[in-house]
Amino acid sequence: MEKALLGVRVIDLTRVLAGPFCTMILGDLGADVIKIEAPEGDESRNYGPFVKGESAYFMSINRNKRSVVLNLKEPKGVEIFKKLVQKADVLVENFRPGTTAKLGISYEDLQPLNPRLIYASCSGFGQTGPYRLRPAYDIIIQAMGGIMSITGHPGGEPTRVGASIADITAALFTVIGILAALAERERSGRGQYIDISMLDCQVAILENAIVRYSTGGEVPKPIGNRHPSITPFTALRTQDGYVIIAVGNDNLWRRFCQAIKREDLIDDPRFKTNPLRTQNWEELYAILRSVFSQYTTAEALAIIEAAGVPCGPLQDISQVFHDPQIRHRDMIVPVEHPVAGVVWMAGTPLKLSRTPGNITKPAPTLGQHTYEVLQEIGYSEAELQELEAQGVITPAQKKSK
Amino acid sequence: MEKALLGVRVIDLTRVLAGPFCTMILGDLGADVIKIEAPEGDESRNYGPFVKGESAYFMSINRNKRSVVLNLKEPKGVEIFKKLVQKADVLVENFRPGTTAKLGISYEDLQPLNPRLIYASCSGFGQTGPYRLRPAYDIIIQAMGGIMSITGHPGGEPTRVGASIADITAALFTVIGILAALAERERSGRGQYIDISMLDCQVAILENAIVRYSTGGEVPKPIGNRHPSITPFTALRTQDGYVIIAVGNDNLWRRFCQAIKREDLIDDPRFKTNPLRTQNWEELYAILRSVFSQYTTAEALAIIEAAGVPCGPLQDISQVFHDPQIRHRDMIVPVEHPVAGVVWMAGTPLKLSRTPGNITKPAPTLGQHTYEVLQEIGYSEAELQELEAQGVITPAQKKSK
Repeated sequence: MEKALLGVRVIDLTRVLAGPFCTMILGDLGADVIKIEAPEGDESRNYGPFVKGESAYFMSINRNKRSVVLNLKEPKGVEIFKKLVQKADVLVENFRPGTTAKLGISYEDLQPLNPRLIYASCSGFGQTGPYRLRPAYDIIIQAMGGIMSITGHPGGEPTRVGASIADITAALFTVIGILAALAERERSGRGQYIDISMLDCQVAILENAIVRYSTGGEVPKPIGNRHPSITPFTALRTQDGYVIIAVGNDNLWRRFCQAIKREDLIDDPRFKTNPLRTQNWEELYAILRSVFSQYTTAEALAIIEAAGVPCGPLQDISQVFHDPQIRHRDMIVPVEHPVAGVVWMAGTPLKLSRTPGNITKPAPTLGQHTYEVLQEIGYSEAELQELEAQGVITPAQKKSK
Repeated sequence: MEKALLGVRVIDLTRVLAGPFCTMILGDLGADVIKIEAPEGDESRNYGPFVKGESAYFMSINRNKRSVVLNLKEPKGVEIFKKLVQKADVLVENFRPGTTAKLGISYEDLQPLNPRLIYASCSGFGQTGPYRLRPAYDIIIQAMGGIMSITGHPGGEPTRVGASIADITAALFTVIGILAALAERERSGRGQYIDISMLDCQVAILENAIVRYSTGGEVPKPIGNRHPSITPFTALRTQDGYVIIAVGNDNLWRRFCQAIKREDLIDDPRFKTNPLRTQNWEELYAILRSVFSQYTTAEALAIIEAAGVPCGPLQDISQVFHDPQIRHRDMIVPVEHPVAGVVWMAGTPLKLSRTPGNITKPAPTLGQHTYEVLQEIGYSEAELQELEAQGVITPAQKKSK
């Protein structure tokens, strides 16, 4: 299968989640991603769950990459690194701002060596501004970026999104920045610097919350699972789970009431129109909770779907894992790892007809490709053995856990 | 300022959120986005909040686009549409699968007219598989995709993420697919079809949840604001808000205890190491809740920051709006709309050094650019007036609200 980013070489200095998720997508699209690790390895190699001593977490976001162990605290390590960069199209890093400059590998250091280089930095707060040097974790960015203040149930605690959405949206925007810069380079022949901030990205995804505040002065609050202006539109508990219903207009409302055999509600003066239903949502949801408590999830879905009303079950991760649509779309896939064996992980949603995203190799063991990659750029076996003896590089067999 | 996607023309058939958010990003990057609207307009023009009758919600996700009103139910409308497509690079649509085929504008219909066309479909469940024809809303996809099952507080209700993350992540992956296809087209000269599913994208962002289930059989549950394996790492209530703390290792633990004047906790046998703290998190968090209840947010942050422990405030949308870092990064920006006047909205996180994302024009009024765009592809004023009389096109003045 042809690859979308065939021939694009990425030098990947990233660790943990935001950066690795970005370079994983580039790898899924066919770029040659060379992950440069310090001798101790990406710290997420130590994050569980483990399979035969290898982190399944690391595996799931580092497939399609090669691992080179390079000690960037040694001048010879930096020298090798610069040779790699000269033959690369893209560099991605997610250190705290200032770290690459200390190592002598900032954009300013590298751009003269390779003016076509696209250099992307993904950090908590960005490279500029008063908070730029603050340490960031997903939960800190979710909290400062506002999404926690609008997630959760009315009157309850603010709630972190259960996946690391601050890291992941930053990863996606970093990919977008890189691909846009690649498109631009086709015209100009020049690379550029990309400065992605996790906090910026959280603000970018707040959706209607910003304009609700900026135009009306309303500070949006968590409203649980209901919709601010469409009713009924929520999660309702059944005997064995939850069903989501989305009754988007008055025509669907009529059909929904017929389906649940509550025709009496259709023209009830409290619920006759969507604005009325939204105004009287508490009364309506109390009625619907009692109705749905008499169904199983499967029964409720069968009735509501037959009426043509948008609905769906709340699925836990085991249900997601076995869902026929998700399996049909190859979104849960087995990947064979040389040490751990087969590990099932999320696939790629990038379904391009001629050049689809694809998992062609498992995550590398630490330093698995040190010799291979450095030989590609001209180092001889003897030179590499000497560098190894000097502690500048590490091959797989010496350090893999 | 130079634009990254200068010269890229996008025909935008999208409505509501996922599709428009995708084409907004392409527009922010400098593509010429031509939004094709039915005579009644994108339904999100009817979503509040409104400013002088214009939807601020619509404005915030449709800036940098031009609006052409074209009746695709008329054969002449389809004919004009095909002329537009012949001069375009990208088409994006988010109808339910099957709709474009009915209109005679599916990829199969258009590809022969423009083999370089990149045609991206963004739908709830994708173009294939057993659920492909089901209606989708953000909450249904969040529920079926598993993120709601891991968001929320232990023992509480499942919780929808407060922004429409299912729509937005699908939008971001659609942008990535389009830009990857543009890169590939530089080599092959050929376009292709892109099939993005909101449900696929939700699975792709579940992060460690999938491998926790696939390797250990554990079904991840909501754990509120704590971290599954790092402690203390949570939101703690203060006298006037919440503070997030992220004490990532034993060294930070020591400094944290010193900062809050609880040196007694450092070597407490329940809390001495991170695994112990994680095991005994309930006891520890009870202690910390009582400690933090004595501080204001500002006091707590001052003490913890001074100790070098990662932390941050929980910000509501008004605090996000005024945050100095967010303002410094131009992430809250004023955009002048011809009818509504100045509306403040989220900026773009795509900070590319030479070709940054940028808002160069406000969202269009309905049909604002019908004449302008169709004149660019060769229609005369007289022809357009006739098409207008026939109800095939609508210019701005006739239908804008």
